[in-house]
Amino acid sequence: MSKLRVESFTVSVDGFGAGPHQDINNPLGVGGQLLHGWAMSTRTFQKNVFGSDGGATGVDDDFAARGFENVGAWILGRNMFGPVRGPWPDESWRGWWGENPVYHVPVFVLTNHARAPLVMEGGTTFHFVTEGVEAALLRAREAANGKDVRVGGGVNVIQQYLRQRLIDEMHIAISPVLLGTGERLFEGVNLPALGYGCTQHVATPLATHLVFSRV
Amino acid sequence: MSKLRVESFTVSVDGFGAGPHQDINNPLGVGGQLLHGWAMSTRTFQKNVFGSDGGATGVDDDFAARGFENVGAWILGRNMFGPVRGPWPDESWRGWWGENPVYHVPVFVLTNHARAPLVMEGGTTFHFVTEGVEAALLRAREAANGKDVRVGGGVNVIQQYLRQRLIDEMHIAISPVLLGTGERLFEGVNLPALGYGCTQHVATPLATHLVFSRV
Repeated sequence: MSKLRVESFTVSVDGFGAGPHQDINNPLGVGGQLLHGWAMSTRTFQKNVFGSDGGATGVDDDFAARGFENVGAWILGRNMFGPVRGPWPDESWRGWWGENPVYHVPVFVLTNHARAPLVMEGGTTFHFVTEGVEAALLRAREAANGKDVRVGGGVNVIQQYLRQRLIDEMHIAISPVLLGTGERLFEGVNLPALGYGCTQHVATPLATHLVFSRV
Repeated sequence: MSKLRVESFTVSVDGFGAGPHQDINNPLGVGGQLLHGWAMSTRTFQKNVFGSDGGATGVDDDFAARGFENVGAWILGRNMFGPVRGPWPDESWRGWWGENPVYHVPVFVLTNHARAPLVMEGGTTFHFVTEGVEAALLRAREAANGKDVRVGGGVNVIQQYLRQRLIDEMHIAISPVLLGTGERLFEGVNLPALGYGCTQHVATPLATHLVFSRV
């Protein structure tokens, strides 16, 4: 059965999934890049994101790698796709990732503003979905063709799927950094009340990894 | 110089320092005891809290032990002292810890309701302070006589001292449990803006330990 998964979503010690003031120079908000130190160091990210041969193996890399396994489609909130707010002024924004994005599968971008699909190199097509999270999930499942669907974020999108108990597995990393302000993953989402529990816990020098599942 | 320290204060993955619905049967709120698995297992807690010889050594125990080192006085919020709310109906409530509490030094309890000092066995005296956090700190520093003052909690008391930048060091443990609701340590306190940073990070199978200091 195709699962809906969150993978490698990282929060700060004070609970924030991204820093404040996202813009073209700060895709993850101010300070947000510090969050991802554990992931950036891994062989998986070096290879898949930077096209480099280096990187560390071990627990951090195992978690990074599982995030790319058996993923047939992605769902992203619009702010993860780019810094443009409101109606699209034109079609010039094509994502943060260059002409050959890291996804290599269909990506469904949740937005209030319609836009034609954007076919990129390497198998990635961005589809813009204006009908909400359930419609995006239906389309992503169909596109995934039996494989899993990965929700990339951000916080608001993950919360919407959690509140409907649609997430099957959620891997969260806590990085030893403070952001101070931003969007809080666990704000207004009562995971135990929704039936979720912590089913895996492994810590490394760079992050604490937790997996949540319905229990 | 005498420091103001928070030690072994534990929060859940979703950020709560205590569970909801504290009462006589749930001193830490419902589910709150799960938070403290890492500490309960240690030799330090077995000896100091339960009077037993067993318990684990290692990183968790090192953190537990440092919480008892060089502490000359404690400050507690009234809800950590007991489940009584509002004016004291009588003097019958003498704390959660029996006649010989774990502190063995003067303990300053913040409350809106005056009460005579309560002298217990083993060196613990509970002093009830109605003049606020700064008055409690002055009295605790004097009583500590050059040693450090430890703030036991709860969340609200720690936050008041943090907002005034009076905490010198804060050791927080994150336990791999979800509480869902409760009091959130990092809510409404922007630690980087207050000048705090994470200065130590060590993880064990039972908890992630972080130390925050002014940087």
